[in-house]
Amino acid sequence: MTPERKTSCTIRFEPSGLRTIVPLGTTLLEAARQAGVYVTSICGGDGYCGKCKVVVDEGETEAPPTTLLSKQEHHDRVVLACETRVRSDVTVTIPKSHQLDTGRILLDSDAHRFSELAAEGMAGGAFPYNPLVQKRCLRMTPPSEQDQLADHERLYAAIRKETDAPVMQTGYRILQALPGILRESNYTVTATLAQRGGTVEVVDVEAGDTSARNWAAVVDVGTTTVVVHLVDLATAATVDAEATYNSQMHFGEDYIRRIIYAEEHDAFGEMQRAIVQDVNGLIGTLAERRAIGQGEITAVVCSGNTAMIHFLLALDPRRIRRAPYVPTAAWVPPIRAAEAGIRISKRGLLYTLPAVGAYVGSDIVAGVLATRLYEAPELSLFIDIGTNGEVVLGSKAWMVCASSSAGPAFEGSGVKHGMRAAPGAIERFKIVEDGRFEYRTIGEDPPRGLCGSGLLDVLSNLWESGIVDRTGRFARRDDPRLADGPDGPEFTLVPAADGRHAVVITQADVLNLMRSKAGVYAAIQALLEATDTRPEQLQAVYVAGGFGNYLDPASAIMVGMLPDVPVERIRFVGNTAIAGAKMALMSRQALAKAEEIAGRMTYFDLMSHAHYMDAFVQANFLPHTDPDRFPSVRARLAQRRAAKARE
Amino acid sequence: MTPERKTSCTIRFEPSGLRTIVPLGTTLLEAARQAGVYVTSICGGDGYCGKCKVVVDEGETEAPPTTLLSKQEHHDRVVLACETRVRSDVTVTIPKSHQLDTGRILLDSDAHRFSELAAEGMAGGAFPYNPLVQKRCLRMTPPSEQDQLADHERLYAAIRKETDAPVMQTGYRILQALPGILRESNYTVTATLAQRGGTVEVVDVEAGDTSARNWAAVVDVGTTTVVVHLVDLATAATVDAEATYNSQMHFGEDYIRRIIYAEEHDAFGEMQRAIVQDVNGLIGTLAERRAIGQGEITAVVCSGNTAMIHFLLALDPRRIRRAPYVPTAAWVPPIRAAEAGIRISKRGLLYTLPAVGAYVGSDIVAGVLATRLYEAPELSLFIDIGTNGEVVLGSKAWMVCASSSAGPAFEGSGVKHGMRAAPGAIERFKIVEDGRFEYRTIGEDPPRGLCGSGLLDVLSNLWESGIVDRTGRFARRDDPRLADGPDGPEFTLVPAADGRHAVVITQADVLNLMRSKAGVYAAIQALLEATDTRPEQLQAVYVAGGFGNYLDPASAIMVGMLPDVPVERIRFVGNTAIAGAKMALMSRQALAKAEEIAGRMTYFDLMSHAHYMDAFVQANFLPHTDPDRFPSVRARLAQRRAAKARE
Repeated sequence: MTPERKTSCTIRFEPSGLRTIVPLGTTLLEAARQAGVYVTSICGGDGYCGKCKVVVDEGETEAPPTTLLSKQEHHDRVVLACETRVRSDVTVTIPKSHQLDTGRILLDSDAHRFSELAAEGMAGGAFPYNPLVQKRCLRMTPPSEQDQLADHERLYAAIRKETDAPVMQTGYRILQALPGILRESNYTVTATLAQRGGTVEVVDVEAGDTSARNWAAVVDVGTTTVVVHLVDLATAATVDAEATYNSQMHFGEDYIRRIIYAEEHDAFGEMQRAIVQDVNGLIGTLAERRAIGQGEITAVVCSGNTAMIHFLLALDPRRIRRAPYVPTAAWVPPIRAAEAGIRISKRGLLYTLPAVGAYVGSDIVAGVLATRLYEAPELSLFIDIGTNGEVVLGSKAWMVCASSSAGPAFEGSGVKHGMRAAPGAIERFKIVEDGRFEYRTIGEDPPRGLCGSGLLDVLSNLWESGIVDRTGRFARRDDPRLADGPDGPEFTLVPAADGRHAVVITQADVLNLMRSKAGVYAAIQALLEATDTRPEQLQAVYVAGGFGNYLDPASAIMVGMLPDVPVERIRFVGNTAIAGAKMALMSRQALAKAEEIAGRMTYFDLMSHAHYMDAFVQANFLPHTDPDRFPSVRARLAQRRAAKARE
Repeated sequence: MTPERKTSCTIRFEPSGLRTIVPLGTTLLEAARQAGVYVTSICGGDGYCGKCKVVVDEGETEAPPTTLLSKQEHHDRVVLACETRVRSDVTVTIPKSHQLDTGRILLDSDAHRFSELAAEGMAGGAFPYNPLVQKRCLRMTPPSEQDQLADHERLYAAIRKETDAPVMQTGYRILQALPGILRESNYTVTATLAQRGGTVEVVDVEAGDTSARNWAAVVDVGTTTVVVHLVDLATAATVDAEATYNSQMHFGEDYIRRIIYAEEHDAFGEMQRAIVQDVNGLIGTLAERRAIGQGEITAVVCSGNTAMIHFLLALDPRRIRRAPYVPTAAWVPPIRAAEAGIRISKRGLLYTLPAVGAYVGSDIVAGVLATRLYEAPELSLFIDIGTNGEVVLGSKAWMVCASSSAGPAFEGSGVKHGMRAAPGAIERFKIVEDGRFEYRTIGEDPPRGLCGSGLLDVLSNLWESGIVDRTGRFARRDDPRLADGPDGPEFTLVPAADGRHAVVITQADVLNLMRSKAGVYAAIQALLEATDTRPEQLQAVYVAGGFGNYLDPASAIMVGMLPDVPVERIRFVGNTAIAGAKMALMSRQALAKAEEIAGRMTYFDLMSHAHYMDAFVQANFLPHTDPDRFPSVRARLAQRRAAKARE
């Protein structure tokens, strides 16, 4: 018999052991996507970022020549996953640097931090507790010959006794099931009432009193990470939280690349499924952990950048990247969560906070809501550092906002040992007098990597102590902690020990972090200049983002990410995308306020600002090409030099 | 080989030729239902009404003995379809008397009559033209760098420029399709806006200007007949109408029997499909005839008795027949028509007028709206004679209402030669001086049967001329026009000629009609007595129902159906279920008024009224046991007797 020509082959990924069967000629990147294995790819598979290096352990592959791999890498069978096509069954090892941290991410303190913000709001009487979705136990008198009110109107009358709902709507399926539920429960039912525009929708009617069991999921749909908080609406408490990396990272690091990928590969559906699965996975995990039925989660409130919200809801995002940059919807009306594939209560609603436009999303509106910048008499600055760095400047009088593509370095992505704020992440780092490195990890676990606040501290300290120069280059070639690693020069922060790897920062990492901070600073500068604002006028600078539990304002100024204001004016506010969304969940009035805020914010297009690119280039130094902008940094460095001179 | 035992057999129905395959042992009535063949059945298949007689032409059947069939009938192989089970392939002939008239029913004049009523309302400024569903052509400026409003908000802004819609909702699918439609149409689109409670819902967005193509279907969901009018919302004109018998008649003549049937046979789904198919069939016919796409019909507005609305919308109707007689909903909120299986525009809404309760439905509220009884300073009476006879008494100060089970005799059902108001129906009938019979048929077609107004005239004239006595019995045994027919004594009104059958009225028909009119009169009497109203206080008596184009008030008084008021106060108003529903369609304000009317009407339960049954028995005479109640009839008869005496 003639051996049959094989047309498909099995690809096995180590160390996960995940497998997939693909046609011959498939790229390893595509195979990894299909297998659900994460491979870093910044360019989205175009073969120029060189990030998707994997090791072919066994089997035949084929790839065009590339300058992105060293001789040593060729020798070690390292290939670019995006350009390498399979010719047989293959076993591939994904280097550790690619692997997403799927361990539990520390969020309790975020929740805690929000509860402070929310309490503030409540104490100030800004928003009454009036959640978007409410369960009301209704004890009705059964009908009689003297009271022949129909079931539907009996329900409405009972609801109107409980709450102010001039305009109501009932789902058809609810209506159909109503007679059975009323009689089975002897006229004691629990109605789930959801605000939908100006209407109160009866989204569910259950037999008996279930009003103590009512949860909502609050979702930060980030480009790099997705965070879900579970809120108990009976007590207004955040009971649990969970986060994961956004699976769309397989398709490109930032959302512009993902839109391009989706267009080129007609992959909008696939990408929506990816993010919907992430959200469902997190909600499912939380529900299971807290022994809550998915039907008891009655609402989802989302915030996120406009592109991510479009992807999540399968709204066409293509025009976000094309002039004149018009999204399908900046204010997405409430929809049935099930219609978008989100698994909660069958008729539960999905709310999205309003956005300003294509580049300033509902996450930023949430931040302005949570910090109450919109009602402050004095000017303040709000900065959200995620994959993008959005900046809002304003007060109760006016607000302007801008978006810079900071890159996800401070989220731990694109940095060799960067990681999310999870146990083992170095969150504080300091070079003390005698040159020793002191650090603290989350959970006091052995150090595994660096989260955002740790990275900022490292950059600040390396620069202050002269290990890197003002251009970000490693300055002391003779330092024994500096070595040539597989990714170029790297500086060891924590040596390997007890079987765990060293924690290092590479030259590329430092330059990445500098680009991120420069993007943020340049955006701040542009807004300040355009509004004729001096930094000292800023009464508060709010910094939001997934840095961890902590951020040292001094480090942020030291590296030139934030303007040189008194450190006590800088407040790290954590994940305000979640915090603001939670406020909207808790109060219809807060959601209305978010809509007002979105309407009041003026978008400032950095790209049309003549000096922005110059400002960015100038900010690509530590702290800046113009040291006069950072007098406190200059003073500190002068002090240090004087101390050195005294030694 | 052993011959295989047959377990199913084919039943063929003549004259239609329709066939169905059923298991051995199935009843002929059930087989007819499955084949979609109409067989009259008043008892719903319980074997006691004797109406479901069919002829077995070929094949074996089995049936229990019955006294409902004569010897002759046994000889002619006549059987009761409900009790006869098939034992082999069978061919059955359905006698003509069963066959539903599927010819076109004359409705143009109904439409005309409504347009008068509506014009009145409009002239009086009662309701502005403000339809429940409106198409608005929106010409938007395309976005630019100076105007980056999102697609969804651009649409909303354009809508709000056109119309007052403080609270809007958009379907998720609409939102998803919006970017494509806006760009394909170069920002000229037509939005279909539907009122939904206090919210305006964007139910569709189409490319270009389609505002001239917007239709709605107005449906009278009657127990016996279903009527649909097609309204052009661009011109407010009724463009066409169509009617059919309600296919649920297979399951029982009145809705109580149908509810019982559905419960006993778990046939709610089947019965819903039957009525939904009727409505879809009528809408489809109208759309095809007028070359309108089903997607161009953007709304359906229904009125009907509460049970029929429950059946149509698959709402549980079981408690309508059980104390304390509570429907699932008297005020059904607007639902997506597609959710109930009604085929119009995909996201088009189905509206139902509000009802008073289980026994006074939205058709009666529609009648009160159309006649404007609710705002009259003086008392008037509204009577809707369909399968039930509902009566409303009141003025702007108060309104009471009641329902009697009149039976569908005046709709032409349960009367040997009764028929709907279709061409060939005798609509006027008069016995002139010399004893000759004069009549007029609809369309001046050869006489085929009698519609409601014709039946009323026949009863009145037979009684006035002494052919029937005051108990309804044929009085002149020697009259050559009286003969024994297959259904007992029958009186020939129009002899057979030119190949067409004679038009007769049987003794049973007369008694049926008398029961109907007695039910109506007793209900009127009960309301008058309960409210201490004398007939002469009634400034107007509105008579609604599917009588045809015409109803002689003198006949209605002569037979004792209506109280003896001056004839000029009696106004025949046609199908007010359609008229009122059309007013609601045309004006959101009219729908709101209907809700107010339903709330104001007090239901009067005839069964709990001690004298009702007595009143019914007393009314079962011509005109009544108490001739003092009908002085004009007495005078007329005295006049007649005097004239006879002079001869």
